[in-house]
Amino acid sequence: MTAETETAAYPVTPRNRVKRMHERGSYDRAAVHAILDAAMLCHVAYVIDGQPYATPTLFWRRGDTLYWHGSSASRMLRHLKAGTPACLTVAHLDGLVLARSGFNHSANYRSAMCFGTARLVEDADEKITAMRDVVDRFYPERSALLRPITPQEAKATTIIAMVIDDAAAKVRAKGVGDDEEDFALPIWAGVIPVTTVLGEVQTCHRLVDGVGRPETLSLFPEGGRLDAALLEGQRIYEEA
Amino acid sequence: MTAETETAAYPVTPRNRVKRMHERGSYDRAAVHAILDAAMLCHVAYVIDGQPYATPTLFWRRGDTLYWHGSSASRMLRHLKAGTPACLTVAHLDGLVLARSGFNHSANYRSAMCFGTARLVEDADEKITAMRDVVDRFYPERSALLRPITPQEAKATTIIAMVIDDAAAKVRAKGVGDDEEDFALPIWAGVIPVTTVLGEVQTCHRLVDGVGRPETLSLFPEGGRLDAALLEGQRIYEEA
Repeated sequence: MTAETETAAYPVTPRNRVKRMHERGSYDRAAVHAILDAAMLCHVAYVIDGQPYATPTLFWRRGDTLYWHGSSASRMLRHLKAGTPACLTVAHLDGLVLARSGFNHSANYRSAMCFGTARLVEDADEKITAMRDVVDRFYPERSALLRPITPQEAKATTIIAMVIDDAAAKVRAKGVGDDEEDFALPIWAGVIPVTTVLGEVQTCHRLVDGVGRPETLSLFPEGGRLDAALLEGQRIYEEA
Repeated sequence: MTAETETAAYPVTPRNRVKRMHERGSYDRAAVHAILDAAMLCHVAYVIDGQPYATPTLFWRRGDTLYWHGSSASRMLRHLKAGTPACLTVAHLDGLVLARSGFNHSANYRSAMCFGTARLVEDADEKITAMRDVVDRFYPERSALLRPITPQEAKATTIIAMVIDDAAAKVRAKGVGDDEEDFALPIWAGVIPVTTVLGEVQTCHRLVDGVGRPETLSLFPEGGRLDAALLEGQRIYEEA
């Protein structure tokens, strides 16, 4: 294995090893990133006083570091300077799979689970960069057009960062997987595709006269796929 | 407080109290159920050997009990007869909110976090009922049309159940929330709606000649919203 192929995949550990339907799993870095980058919403799992929480939140990726807004875990993290184990998961539902047996009913999906140690972003420069990035990663170059961040806003914002130590992608993207002998049964089977799409932009009704639409909105055409828009946004963000 | 209003809301505890943006929160049972019932995909948080996991999975609700497929946690639960604390979360992304400051950028969403003790379903009758329900809850009356469940399939299936002890809903559903003085700035602001929709049904290419589409597919019209279809499916499931 060359150095290049080593960096192309995350290490396989007891926590990220795909146990069920392992033929759907991958530890490939690019496969994991493609699933993450097509999403804005993730779920982060933490443990606070023995209780697990799955918290939905907006997130973004910069290299192998994931960032998200603090909320429930920030109070805990303020006391845990060494950080705390976390798991950040993204899942896209792509289709409903109706088979000839209940057992083979399924769904098409793309999911990525990322493991690491969550830490509070406390460095002032890293925090300001993150507060700009949370805008620019989704809406290219938008932060430069906005009213500047105030010190009070920086103080009121909690941002959490996690380097991905290991991760796994899991994908099902195919038709009905019935048992061979069941295909002969007179039962309807098929797939209902599911996509998440963008609607017609609703301009704020208090917009100052003469303000035009920013170019960034061309990333989000009405009827377009959200995942495609977000992937393209990440590409621009990485090149900036 | 009368008995009736007591059952209309979940108790508020340290783990489900909405801390950030608490004006968006609700402990109303119907509000929580409406968010759960509009979804097929959830994320369950568990702790295994101190490591938190956010596992995406299909789930459904029967009264105040949530059911989902086992996978990663089933091995742990087989050894924990008393069950283990878990958190099952659903989140719908409904819109991207572009404000005049970075701080007021946001998203419209509906989320529900449910807390309780996850247990393995081991009773044979409860398990067979659950294996039928996972089909019928999404595709009304479909299980009766399918090839019956085999004993091997029942053995290979792990189902987890959790009574909701407490829960919270959190919803943002509005336009741009800029600071009052920022509305006068010459900066574009608005909302990009996001919906998850159904595509054209892809019939299995190995369908036996003469097999028509089942009536259940009328719940899933091309271009229709997935959340609306799932809500209607839950209504039918509860009446059956």
